[in-house]
Amino acid sequence: MDAAKQDPPAQSRRERLRAETSAEIKAIALRLMAEGGPSAISLRAIAREMGMTAGAIYGYYPTRDDLVTTLITDVYTSLVDAVEAARDTRSDPGGRIIAWGRALRTWALANPEGFRLIYGDPVPGYIAPEGGRAPEAEHRACAGLTGLVADAWPTAAAGQTHSDADWADFTPSLAADARTEFPDLPPAAVALALRLWGRMHGLVSLEVYGHLRTQSHDPAKLYEAELRDLVASYGLTG
Amino acid sequence: MDAAKQDPPAQSRRERLRAETSAEIKAIALRLMAEGGPSAISLRAIAREMGMTAGAIYGYYPTRDDLVTTLITDVYTSLVDAVEAARDTRSDPGGRIIAWGRALRTWALANPEGFRLIYGDPVPGYIAPEGGRAPEAEHRACAGLTGLVADAWPTAAAGQTHSDADWADFTPSLAADARTEFPDLPPAAVALALRLWGRMHGLVSLEVYGHLRTQSHDPAKLYEAELRDLVASYGLTG
Repeated sequence: MDAAKQDPPAQSRRERLRAETSAEIKAIALRLMAEGGPSAISLRAIAREMGMTAGAIYGYYPTRDDLVTTLITDVYTSLVDAVEAARDTRSDPGGRIIAWGRALRTWALANPEGFRLIYGDPVPGYIAPEGGRAPEAEHRACAGLTGLVADAWPTAAAGQTHSDADWADFTPSLAADARTEFPDLPPAAVALALRLWGRMHGLVSLEVYGHLRTQSHDPAKLYEAELRDLVASYGLTG
Repeated sequence: MDAAKQDPPAQSRRERLRAETSAEIKAIALRLMAEGGPSAISLRAIAREMGMTAGAIYGYYPTRDDLVTTLITDVYTSLVDAVEAARDTRSDPGGRIIAWGRALRTWALANPEGFRLIYGDPVPGYIAPEGGRAPEAEHRACAGLTGLVADAWPTAAAGQTHSDADWADFTPSLAADARTEFPDLPPAAVALALRLWGRMHGLVSLEVYGHLRTQSHDPAKLYEAELRDLVASYGLTG
């Protein structure tokens, strides 16, 4: 890794053009989705718009699902990089949750199409490949939320004594991942991580989809109050 | 009102057929939206599918926006009827919140297209008419949430002493409605009502859009825990 950083391989003109074309294809795909919903993502439509032949675009993305997988991977990676960088500016568990939450909102407002792609309607007919980079990036988001709760658990556990959460409540992959990565956490903590996700998602998605601004001039203030209330309920301060 | 209930006007065959056709138009509009997003709602496409002429469908809905307004009105009315009926089975403030919240989830899972229509992406280019039934139905939903908080306020206020909410935070119509209907409530309570909305919306929207079932086999249990935690944070029990 360090060697690569010190000595990045020179990118040929051909490689650079290819990267630019690939980026343009992805940008058009997100715009098509913005205009016509996830069903509007079509290699043929993108090729037409770029003045490429269908054959040429297949050299970049052999199928629409390959393009969608790349888009989903990019979006999750961008989101998780943003929230983890924000989280890591703080060392206290409450501050880390608030920093993550704020960064989620900032990212979502700056990337509304990306937000729709991963949290809105699935692309019709899209089948995610087994393994690969998209599920890994999604997994990072999920593990990050569980990590926030794991850090908070010493104080948050007291509020969850009545939880009837059970490992069998979760899909096998979530349960297996949580038990591997956080062997000391009970299922109540994993349930709390999913609820943490929902709690941040609520106001952010209402704002991204344009429903909060018709009620409030200051969605940031509402969300900030929600985050502070959330960490307080975990026995923490922000 | 009572007179009308006791003696409903006889519906002519012509009126009945007209009502059936109108219902079919609306059902097809929602299905088109399910398949192709909100931009897919088109009078021309619906007429084609029903074997009607464009002229005939304009006799029902002169413009696409008229149809969308009717759909939004129907959806909000159906939602608010459901949550208010559930709420009114209980008289304790905590129980009323939980009953409303449960009914919201049940309604959303039974009416995923309606949920998308009012909480997902707006229909492109749609301009809501000033006044009329759609804003009234939306207002009922909003006033209902504020009413839940108003009932809870005697105990919930203690948790909001640090709120910096201000009347100027809200759009003029929300502020005016809240001050008219709940003259004793401070802006902190209206802010809490918007956060209550967000808190219920989070897990419900993740479930409707298919993102929660990939993590949990039991979203109902998660949501129930969230609702119980919510009313506890208001100093109430369910």
